[in-house]
Amino acid sequence: MTAPLLLTPGPLTTSARTRQAMMVDWGSWDDRFNQLTASVCEQLLAIIDGVDSHHCVPLQGSGTFAVEAAIGTLVPRDGKVLVLINGAYGKRLAKICEVLGRAFSTFETAEDEPTTAADVDRLLQADPAITHVALIHCETSTGILNPLPEIAQVVKTHGKRLIIDAMSSFGALPIDAREVPFDALVAASGKCLEGVPGMGFVFADKQALAAAQGNCHSLAMDLFDQHSYMAKTGQWRFTPPTHVVAALHEALLQYQEEGGLPARHKRYASNCQALLGGMAELGVRSFLPAAIQAPIIVTFHAPQDPRYQFKDFYERVKAKGFILYPGKLTQVETFRVGCIGDVDAAGMRAAVKAIAEVLHAMEVLDI
Amino acid sequence: MTAPLLLTPGPLTTSARTRQAMMVDWGSWDDRFNQLTASVCEQLLAIIDGVDSHHCVPLQGSGTFAVEAAIGTLVPRDGKVLVLINGAYGKRLAKICEVLGRAFSTFETAEDEPTTAADVDRLLQADPAITHVALIHCETSTGILNPLPEIAQVVKTHGKRLIIDAMSSFGALPIDAREVPFDALVAASGKCLEGVPGMGFVFADKQALAAAQGNCHSLAMDLFDQHSYMAKTGQWRFTPPTHVVAALHEALLQYQEEGGLPARHKRYASNCQALLGGMAELGVRSFLPAAIQAPIIVTFHAPQDPRYQFKDFYERVKAKGFILYPGKLTQVETFRVGCIGDVDAAGMRAAVKAIAEVLHAMEVLDI
Repeated sequence: MTAPLLLTPGPLTTSARTRQAMMVDWGSWDDRFNQLTASVCEQLLAIIDGVDSHHCVPLQGSGTFAVEAAIGTLVPRDGKVLVLINGAYGKRLAKICEVLGRAFSTFETAEDEPTTAADVDRLLQADPAITHVALIHCETSTGILNPLPEIAQVVKTHGKRLIIDAMSSFGALPIDAREVPFDALVAASGKCLEGVPGMGFVFADKQALAAAQGNCHSLAMDLFDQHSYMAKTGQWRFTPPTHVVAALHEALLQYQEEGGLPARHKRYASNCQALLGGMAELGVRSFLPAAIQAPIIVTFHAPQDPRYQFKDFYERVKAKGFILYPGKLTQVETFRVGCIGDVDAAGMRAAVKAIAEVLHAMEVLDI
Repeated sequence: MTAPLLLTPGPLTTSARTRQAMMVDWGSWDDRFNQLTASVCEQLLAIIDGVDSHHCVPLQGSGTFAVEAAIGTLVPRDGKVLVLINGAYGKRLAKICEVLGRAFSTFETAEDEPTTAADVDRLLQADPAITHVALIHCETSTGILNPLPEIAQVVKTHGKRLIIDAMSSFGALPIDAREVPFDALVAASGKCLEGVPGMGFVFADKQALAAAQGNCHSLAMDLFDQHSYMAKTGQWRFTPPTHVVAALHEALLQYQEEGGLPARHKRYASNCQALLGGMAELGVRSFLPAAIQAPIIVTFHAPQDPRYQFKDFYERVKAKGFILYPGKLTQVETFRVGCIGDVDAAGMRAAVKAIAEVLHAMEVLDI
């Protein structure tokens, strides 16, 4: 059986070459592995043009571990975080602040409504106790894009610090550290870089990180310690996921060969167009208006026909070689289709064709 | 270039079959992946005969993440931990308690001196505030084995709870949950099970875990939440390291095929004997007496000859196909050689031969 294509927001489909990089066992203490880590960090920093302003601090675990580490390390214990929410990942940011015991307030907009710079301006004006703003760049719950550059400028104007969860956008949507001021930007190996999951990384402002000693609530998640140790020894502080690091390194080489961020962005945008166009022909409605739809993952309204059941639909589409993703909205029944991973527009069209065949076979008429 | 054999305490050399399991991309939401996770947990619980008494809670990240998660989740905020130390990993337990703000006291013996049950009896008698005891089973700093069953009985007699870091022993040294009482035993994928690094797991006493809601200092490391979510959905709470899980699943199948724990123990013991015997012939002295030497990793005194430099020695042995491990003792110059991973006694003898040739080539005479 051929492995199905993952049309999911990560883990996603990786190239055979990326997976092949995991066929070697690396000693975590060995120079050659240290060079691999250093090369990964260097390539990551280059993507945001952040080598002068930021450190890249890799961290074991999923992306959420890295987000928690960024908040725990960079927000002082007496800080206060304004969390901007329009989906499940924004809510998770608030939950992290709550568990960590950091003071926070939230501002929530509807799941199809981006937070605006004007909102943030008003909120910062109203509460001078806020020290940090936390934002999801592309909210994977829906695929909505929040206006990062505008919000970042407002946060800076107020003299506050910004922490960005760019998990599902980093590597595909442009973010320039020389123009967008932030204390931390967090992403992970298994998203738009097309590595395998198992590590995250935080771009941390050099001065903010230098001032963060002793903030963190956790030993393993302390990015100050993680960075200091790596800067001194070239090694990870605790056992690294060696195969995941090797796969990310190989994925980054392919990223450069493809043409870097512009090429990655272009391919995903083309995937997203192929998907939206094809689904529109079937009459399946996308949840977001095009203007705020990031080319990462698309949320579709579930067909209204009672013969449609997601579980059945999912299994039938999977049998045709495509793995979809369930919806994550509480109010509306939806399903999601990712545009990212080692897939092109032809692959997306094949997925739409499979979806059409399945809806037909299920006799789903009222779409 | 053939990949060198890793004679290190993990990451270590895995089988080609285990690595091959990483050639497939898995959807983290998909049933087939959930079945993989469930099978891993079931196989792990069977190794300690713990299915009735304990839950297996897997966690993203390195083994240290899982150790921190166990302490953070299972020790109440007003608990007090007695940390037993005879090496770097014992010290790390104390550091975790300190960072987490859990009250703790330490008892430290020399690096070649196991903690005894009598020590623990006396310490628990002296300080009734202690609620939990934390112990390293096999201290990787030296390779020393602490008497777990005896200590566990004393802890139970006092009505206290035990947390065991069995990172480097689990899967190779017998631990029976029906006979050794503990609240948590922590290990990881990339050690004696011969998987790749990237996840740990905690065997948590069912009642202790059920009572642990709200204890944890961290969202990502909360084992109560991690277990509850997995029990309800079959899924990991946050993105799992899918390829690492698949590799561990395949490694566990091979573990069973080899003959389970007795066979794994026997092979490592035979590796250790081949190593100790061969090195003794060269005149290289092992640091620990045989009685307290676990068959996991062996610490050797560095040769006294001024022509010996570890870095040079390491690189020359590596060029012959074997990766050694540096010493971790502060008082004495040493180096370490692991006995674990996909290697047999013939491999160990080949490593000794390479070491002999290198010492000869370096003209190291005063060993």
